[in-house]
Amino acid sequence: MNIVLLRDSDHWCGADRVVLSDRRAVHIRSVLRSKVGDSIRLGLLAGPLGVGEIMAISPEGVTLQVCLHQSPPPRHRFDIVLALPRPKVLRRILRTVAEFGVANLHLIHTARVEKSYWQSPLLSPAKVEEALLAGLERSSDTIAPQVHRHPLFRPFVEDQLPQICADRPCLIAQMGAHQPLREVSSGVALVMVGPEGGFVPFELNLAQAAGAQPVHLGSRTLSVDTALTTALAQG
Amino acid sequence: MNIVLLRDSDHWCGADRVVLSDRRAVHIRSVLRSKVGDSIRLGLLAGPLGVGEIMAISPEGVTLQVCLHQSPPPRHRFDIVLALPRPKVLRRILRTVAEFGVANLHLIHTARVEKSYWQSPLLSPAKVEEALLAGLERSSDTIAPQVHRHPLFRPFVEDQLPQICADRPCLIAQMGAHQPLREVSSGVALVMVGPEGGFVPFELNLAQAAGAQPVHLGSRTLSVDTALTTALAQG
Repeated sequence: MNIVLLRDSDHWCGADRVVLSDRRAVHIRSVLRSKVGDSIRLGLLAGPLGVGEIMAISPEGVTLQVCLHQSPPPRHRFDIVLALPRPKVLRRILRTVAEFGVANLHLIHTARVEKSYWQSPLLSPAKVEEALLAGLERSSDTIAPQVHRHPLFRPFVEDQLPQICADRPCLIAQMGAHQPLREVSSGVALVMVGPEGGFVPFELNLAQAAGAQPVHLGSRTLSVDTALTTALAQG
Repeated sequence: MNIVLLRDSDHWCGADRVVLSDRRAVHIRSVLRSKVGDSIRLGLLAGPLGVGEIMAISPEGVTLQVCLHQSPPPRHRFDIVLALPRPKVLRRILRTVAEFGVANLHLIHTARVEKSYWQSPLLSPAKVEEALLAGLERSSDTIAPQVHRHPLFRPFVEDQLPQICADRPCLIAQMGAHQPLREVSSGVALVMVGPEGGFVPFELNLAQAAGAQPVHLGSRTLSVDTALTTALAQG
């Protein structure tokens, strides 16, 4: 982790002193090997970034004097709509969207998504948050992506997609599309990425009827995690 | 898998008929659910792409009439030099470089690479090939990246890097570099990506003395797998 993330619910002693006793304390002691007097990089979850001076280290925990003075980095210009991937890939994808500072991730059902994926324990709020925090800790960010679940494709596209897009372009990644994503003009957008095997024609038609414009990510078929990272890297 | 990959060492009956009896036969029967008379996409490892007509399906195997008539897709314009990642990440990275059609992957040692990584069973030729084939099967390619191992940093940079680059630019990914990789002019290049935590200053200096030009992949610290995919997506 490149920053230690604090929460309002941590053990605060006054406004600017906090005692950590969980894996973050272990990280400070064993990975960073910090000593009393050292400074480490911190962030308050959903709040500012800053530094913490180590005031005390004991078996019970690490006491930090906290100074939070810096805004978190800006959001990625793309919000993402993604066909729910299989659980093992989902964890990595949550970390990736957090690394890139995506503001909103919409997980949707499609014909090629197995229904059982929606029952995965990795979709529990605690597991989702754990994966997102791993990404934030990596990229020194404090703002976790909002993760939205849409288990019905048609109502999502017909009823919600237009509202979610608002005035932004909606782009749908599709092999063989004429326009490359990397040449789409800068500015915010919503980008839809399909499942392994792609969207089925019915879904592509419905999304395009709702205003989605096809774009391609290159000339190769990519796995879902590679395609998502590619879209964010090109955005 | 989007293509079934054949090898010269498969059970060929004449020049254009092959019998598969391993996981590829299982895939054709159970995932593709193909029947006699169906055509499936094929490629000959290190050779052309084409189609195979299913002539027979039995418990012993699947017999295909093979027609190979199409060149594999072009190589990615970047060759990659990568600090050897931890084994779990290596597997995914091998798949990714194969998906993107990278011609050469140079795995190097750096100060922040744990020496034990070089002993990982995942670096055995069989495991490396297995991971590369997963990428080729995904992107319908037949040409596996050449994977080169360089367990000493300094001799690699001082003696081998200039030869490997030949007339190509050598770019080194570095946070805070002035030039974005995505704005580097098109054409072939060698791109160096560091380990988690980055190259140490000595390594950066040595690489730059050997001609490497710093480029950045964006404003955020990314994990190694995300950084590598980002470099290939921007190339």
